[in-house]
Amino acid sequence: MTIKEKALQQHKEWAGKLEITARARVTNSEELSVAYTPGVAEPCLAIQKDYDLSFSLTRRWNTVAVITDGTAVLGLGDIGPEAGMPVMEGKCVLFKEFAGVDAFPLCLRTKDVDELVRTIYLLSGSFGGINLEDISAPRCFEVEQRLKELCDIPVFHDDQHGTAIVVGAALINALKLVDKPIRQVRCVINGAGSAGIAIARHLMRLGVQDLILCDRSGILCRNEPYDNPAHNTMAACTNAACLTGDLQEAMKGADVFIGVSAPHVVTSDMIAGMADKPIVFPMANPVPEIEPEEAKTAGAYVVGTGRSDHPNQINNVLAFPGIFRGALDVRARDINDAMKLAASLAIASLVGEEELSPEYILPKAFDPRVGETVAAAVAQAARESGVARI
Amino acid sequence: MTIKEKALQQHKEWAGKLEITARARVTNSEELSVAYTPGVAEPCLAIQKDYDLSFSLTRRWNTVAVITDGTAVLGLGDIGPEAGMPVMEGKCVLFKEFAGVDAFPLCLRTKDVDELVRTIYLLSGSFGGINLEDISAPRCFEVEQRLKELCDIPVFHDDQHGTAIVVGAALINALKLVDKPIRQVRCVINGAGSAGIAIARHLMRLGVQDLILCDRSGILCRNEPYDNPAHNTMAACTNAACLTGDLQEAMKGADVFIGVSAPHVVTSDMIAGMADKPIVFPMANPVPEIEPEEAKTAGAYVVGTGRSDHPNQINNVLAFPGIFRGALDVRARDINDAMKLAASLAIASLVGEEELSPEYILPKAFDPRVGETVAAAVAQAARESGVARI
Repeated sequence: MTIKEKALQQHKEWAGKLEITARARVTNSEELSVAYTPGVAEPCLAIQKDYDLSFSLTRRWNTVAVITDGTAVLGLGDIGPEAGMPVMEGKCVLFKEFAGVDAFPLCLRTKDVDELVRTIYLLSGSFGGINLEDISAPRCFEVEQRLKELCDIPVFHDDQHGTAIVVGAALINALKLVDKPIRQVRCVINGAGSAGIAIARHLMRLGVQDLILCDRSGILCRNEPYDNPAHNTMAACTNAACLTGDLQEAMKGADVFIGVSAPHVVTSDMIAGMADKPIVFPMANPVPEIEPEEAKTAGAYVVGTGRSDHPNQINNVLAFPGIFRGALDVRARDINDAMKLAASLAIASLVGEEELSPEYILPKAFDPRVGETVAAAVAQAARESGVARI
Repeated sequence: MTIKEKALQQHKEWAGKLEITARARVTNSEELSVAYTPGVAEPCLAIQKDYDLSFSLTRRWNTVAVITDGTAVLGLGDIGPEAGMPVMEGKCVLFKEFAGVDAFPLCLRTKDVDELVRTIYLLSGSFGGINLEDISAPRCFEVEQRLKELCDIPVFHDDQHGTAIVVGAALINALKLVDKPIRQVRCVINGAGSAGIAIARHLMRLGVQDLILCDRSGILCRNEPYDNPAHNTMAACTNAACLTGDLQEAMKGADVFIGVSAPHVVTSDMIAGMADKPIVFPMANPVPEIEPEEAKTAGAYVVGTGRSDHPNQINNVLAFPGIFRGALDVRARDINDAMKLAASLAIASLVGEEELSPEYILPKAFDPRVGETVAAAVAQAARESGVARI
C-alpha cells in the first residue's frame, strides 16, 4: 500500500485525529455541583474580578488555536476551509505529542483580511495562543501583523516563522562545518512567498548581511517596482549590490542556497558555480529544487531538504511545539524576534560538536530533548525581552 | 468546606476541565508521514472533492462548539467572555461524559448581534453542531434564528430549548399523575426571558392551549405594546382571554405554574388559589420562586425545581447531550421542533407508570439510559422530518 492509500485508509479509521477528554469527573450530584452549577459560579466570578485568572482556572494556559482559511494548504493551494482540516488536526496532534499543548483546529469560511483579523481577535479570549496555518501570501503578513497588535496572546504564522527558525538552526550548524562566519556569507533564497520572506528576515537577524531573494521573475532588486508590497519591502533591505538577473545569476559564487520554490529549478551547473563548500537546502516538498544526490555530486558540501527520507530534514516540527510550549509556560503576550532567535540557537545546540557532520546538522524530529530545550530557551527569551506575564 | 470553596479549589487543581488528546500516533517517521505530511494531503483532496467527507475524515462528525459572549452566565449576568469560560468548559465535560460528544468551549469578545452571527457562521465549518450558551435575551433569539438559516449544521441555544424540553417532559408526566389532558390545562409561566419564552413555545407545540406568560410588569397581553419585540410576539399567541394584572391574578385557577424568574415571588396563598392538584415548577436557581416544602404545604400536588437537593430536578443535562448525540448521529442539518418534541417524549418515557409519583416524574441525570434514549428519538425525528444527512 502506498503512503497515499494508507493515509486515506487511516484517516477513515481514525474518524478524527483528535478527541476532547474530560479532566473533571461528573458521576454524581456532588461532583456535578462542583464542576458545573452551582459551584462553577465561583471561578467565573474570580475571573471577572481578575482577568489573569482566566489563564489558570480554565485550560487557557495550555491551549492554542490552529487556524486556517484553507487558502494555502500544503502544496495543494486554495482547497477551502473544510478541506484543510486534516492538516490542522495533524498539527494539533503534533502540538500535543511533542510539547503537551492542547491545540484545537479551526477553519474559517472567509478569505477577507479584515474578517479573518476580526474573527480571530473575537475568539482570542478562548486561547493562550494562536497558530496561523496555511493562509496564502501576501494576506498572511497583514493578518498576522494586525493580530499581533490586537491580541494579548502570542500570534504566530508557522508557515513563515517555523520554517525560518529551523532553516536558521540548520544554517548555524552548517556554517560551523564549512568554517565561514555568518556575517560574511552570501545567501540566495529562491521563492519569495511567506516562507521565503520569513527565512530572509530571520537570517538577517541571525547576522546574514549579503542576502539575495529570488522569485519566478528573478532577483528582487530595489530598482524594480513590484505589485506585491512585501516584495518591495524585501527588495529594499536585501541585495545591497543591486544584482539583477535570474536564479542562475544569483547563485554564482553564493555560499548558501535555500529553496522554498518549485521542483528541479536548480541544476548541477548552478551548484558547481557556487562558492567553495556550498550549503544547499532545496526544501520544495515533496520534490526538491534539486535532488540531494545530484547536489552532492555537483559539489554541495551540506545538503538539507524538507524530506524525511534524506539526511538533514528541515522540518518545522522541530520548532513550533517547543516555541508555543515556552510561550505558554511564561504566559507570553507575544512570540517576538528574540524568542525566534533563541529557538534557532536552541535547536542548533542539540547537535554536539563531535557528532556534527554534513549528514547531521539538525536533531531528529523524535529527539525528546527538542521540545523542552526549545521551550526553555524561548521562555527565557520571553522573560528577558519583557513579554512574559509570569 | 462549602461548595463554593470546594469549587474554587477544584478549579485551581484541575487547571482546566478539558484536555485534547491525540487519536493518531506520531512516534516515528512513517506514522508522521501518514498523520501529517505528505500523507495528509489525501484526506484533504478527498474533502475538497466531496464536502460531506469533512464529516468522516476529520472529527467534525462528533464535535460541537459551546459558544458564549458571556452576557448571561448562570444567574450572574454579563460577566464577560473569559469569565464565562468555566461554565462552557463544564458544559463540554457534560457533553462528553453523558453522550460522548467532543465539545469545545469558545467565548467571543463581542455583544453585537451581526458580529456574533458572522463570527459563528465563519467558524461553523469546523464543527458538527453549535450550542449557544448564556447569551442574553432578546439578542439570543436573533442570533440563533439567523444562524439556523445560515448554517448547514444544527444551531441550538440550550438556555432556551434545553430547559423547555425538560419542562415539557416533566409536565407530560405530572399531568399523568393528576389525570388532566394537556389541551385543557391552564399554564402560567413567570419570567419572559429566553427560557420562559422557549418554554411557552414548546408547551404550546406539546398541546397546551391556555397559556399565560408573565413578566416583572405582569401578564403579557396583546393589547399592550412592549419594547421587547419578543414580548409582542408572545403576547399575540398566548393569553387568548386577554387577562391583565399581576402574577397573583394570573395564577388564580391555573393548573400549572412554571417559574424561571426570581426568588420567592410566589406565596402560599397564590398556590392555594390555583386549580385542584396544582403542578408547580419553581425553577429559579439557586433560590426558587417558592420553597418546595411551602408549595407542598399550600396544596401543590407535584413540585419540581432546578435543584439537585429536592425531588424532580428539572435539569437540562437530561436533554442537551442526547439531543446533540442524536443530531450528530444522523448528521442533521438542524435541530427542529420535531426533534425537540421527540426529546421531551423520550425523557418522559423513562419514568415507568409503576414508578411515576409526585416525587418522581423525571429520570435522574445520572441514569445511563437518558442520553441514548433521547439520542435515538431525536435521530428518528430528524430522519422523519427530513433534516438527516445519513
